[in-house]
Amino acid sequence: MDLKYMQRAIEIAKKGIGRTNPNPLVGAVIVKDGRIIAEGYHACYGSLHAERDAISKLKESAEGADMYVTLEPCCHYGKQPPCTLAIIENKIKNVYVGSSDPNELVAGKGIKQLRDAGINVVEHVMKEECDALNTVFFHYITKKMPYVVMKYAMTADGKIACDSGASKWVTGEIARNHVQETRNALAAIMVGVQTVINDNPSLTCRLENGNNPIRVICDSNLRIPLDSEIIKTAKDVITIIATVSQDKEKIDTIKSYGAEVVTVSENKDGKVDLLELMEKLGEMKIDSVLLEGGGTLNQSALKAGVVNHVQAYIAPKIFGGRGRYTPVTGDSVDVPDKAYMLRNTGIEMLGEDILIEYDIIYK
Amino acid sequence: MDLKYMQRAIEIAKKGIGRTNPNPLVGAVIVKDGRIIAEGYHACYGSLHAERDAISKLKESAEGADMYVTLEPCCHYGKQPPCTLAIIENKIKNVYVGSSDPNELVAGKGIKQLRDAGINVVEHVMKEECDALNTVFFHYITKKMPYVVMKYAMTADGKIACDSGASKWVTGEIARNHVQETRNALAAIMVGVQTVINDNPSLTCRLENGNNPIRVICDSNLRIPLDSEIIKTAKDVITIIATVSQDKEKIDTIKSYGAEVVTVSENKDGKVDLLELMEKLGEMKIDSVLLEGGGTLNQSALKAGVVNHVQAYIAPKIFGGRGRYTPVTGDSVDVPDKAYMLRNTGIEMLGEDILIEYDIIYK
Repeated sequence: MDLKYMQRAIEIAKKGIGRTNPNPLVGAVIVKDGRIIAEGYHACYGSLHAERDAISKLKESAEGADMYVTLEPCCHYGKQPPCTLAIIENKIKNVYVGSSDPNELVAGKGIKQLRDAGINVVEHVMKEECDALNTVFFHYITKKMPYVVMKYAMTADGKIACDSGASKWVTGEIARNHVQETRNALAAIMVGVQTVINDNPSLTCRLENGNNPIRVICDSNLRIPLDSEIIKTAKDVITIIATVSQDKEKIDTIKSYGAEVVTVSENKDGKVDLLELMEKLGEMKIDSVLLEGGGTLNQSALKAGVVNHVQAYIAPKIFGGRGRYTPVTGDSVDVPDKAYMLRNTGIEMLGEDILIEYDIIYK
Repeated sequence: MDLKYMQRAIEIAKKGIGRTNPNPLVGAVIVKDGRIIAEGYHACYGSLHAERDAISKLKESAEGADMYVTLEPCCHYGKQPPCTLAIIENKIKNVYVGSSDPNELVAGKGIKQLRDAGINVVEHVMKEECDALNTVFFHYITKKMPYVVMKYAMTADGKIACDSGASKWVTGEIARNHVQETRNALAAIMVGVQTVINDNPSLTCRLENGNNPIRVICDSNLRIPLDSEIIKTAKDVITIIATVSQDKEKIDTIKSYGAEVVTVSENKDGKVDLLELMEKLGEMKIDSVLLEGGGTLNQSALKAGVVNHVQAYIAPKIFGGRGRYTPVTGDSVDVPDKAYMLRNTGIEMLGEDILIEYDIIYK
């Protein structure tokens, strides 16, 4: 076993970022006589699995070869025939597996099939690194709801805009580009209608060959302007308007522009029930949401318990201000002990800005 | 030359932290035949200089020895006779110097004296590390005003308290202990009177053998409660009430409790002119101030241009909130381009909290 091949499998798995939703990222490398004879990855939803993709690239027999694969090979018929079969048919000798299948009912079965066929299987090879590829997938498979990343860019004194609302720009170009990468990676992006009214954003991914996330606008009372960028481009980029409104006329008008309208229950504040919305988005096979809300939507999402991860970009500047524009607004928690608790998962310098990432710990 | 001896000189210089104000931190090590034969440091204001402290510890002749000293030896008669003389008299052969004398009129003169006496002098040895010992001193000597460190502890969403004002605690014990170290290191601590009214703090250093900073309360209208901890302990810990009030009766009452009252001009907002206050504190030989203000005082200090450094402690939690309690309040800058600009100088994990440090760049 040579870990550099698993490292390579992880690397090529990432080529599927932003395309495999709601499937996992997977990479596979086939090694014989100390050289890679084929490699493959899961490129997009519905395409070949990584193992079969690698096997399809073989230019010589894989008999007696090693396979490094980041996720336990599947053993059931889904959109694709089971990968275990292809591995057995090709007489691969050793299989090195990173992550286990997150579906507990299936976990271990693929490995057992391989072993029953006389193949030597080593599990948990670089498991942590392999698991990290699929935080979103593992969450989605177990919770049936999208993995929600709350992202905001603030100054060192906690402001996301000046008192006037002006926010161009808080962070520098490198940090803003990093946000585009996240937009590319996640299935959907969500903002409140007030952001659409104030900033008229397009919420697309501006990377070259980037993947536009599905746009989800929380718009309890269907206030979205029909001349907004979002509505004007709703035929080109999938757009979901989430509302509690039953106003059939407004709903039909919005639909006529190409946007979908998803009606959900009201929460206690008369706004979109975000937990229910996430369940519905999950049913729509949306495995991940980048929440780029203002402070109000962010607070609603925290209250609803739907946020999983926080990306706080911190710019080396101070705005001061009356406090209208901070990352999470509304009423605060009553006392510090009742704060939403986070666990730091990483700190990164992005040019002059700092990105701090956290997981949310719901008690 | 062996840098490990300069490293040692730097290390022992730090023993003077919090005691040498407004003098520098200095360490000196005397080395002969590959072993340290004496070492010394500047322990407190008025005590022996590091070079003479080291020489006083000699138990054998220093003839032909090396001296490593973090700051250029002085050559003038001050509170102490010039160190250069002692070095020459003791027939030290090589002197390795870290920082240059920050007083441009004196810089190089000590070194020239040594060289004229036939001593080999090497300058700028680990200069950056030696300079870092004395950021405060270098600032104070050149600007005649204290070096001001603005410190705040906020949540990941930029709040220093809940909407109710409750702020116990934002950060964890390790971070709070770190603040105590800063209180020990700096000459003074400053808050606004509103903090005294709300929290009734003692603003002492709670480290064992810690050095209590001089307490400076900005109290434009002399509202400080006479039963506050600050006033009650003003005979034990030096306390300065900075005001624009001319109310002789109130001033006399406060003085009768042992506090000093410093009267300064009003700024445009009718509050204490902080630039003038800093000039006065500088005249009082206060070389450094830890600004633990609320958002209002922090904003005034930034506007007055007196803040040099920022310590932002960021706790892994979210409060949300109406925005009354953020690190810098008042009106924001008009547009992002007019922000107070910072330069990141370090990031440190303190338990679960993150300390980000910045220098302020005034344009």
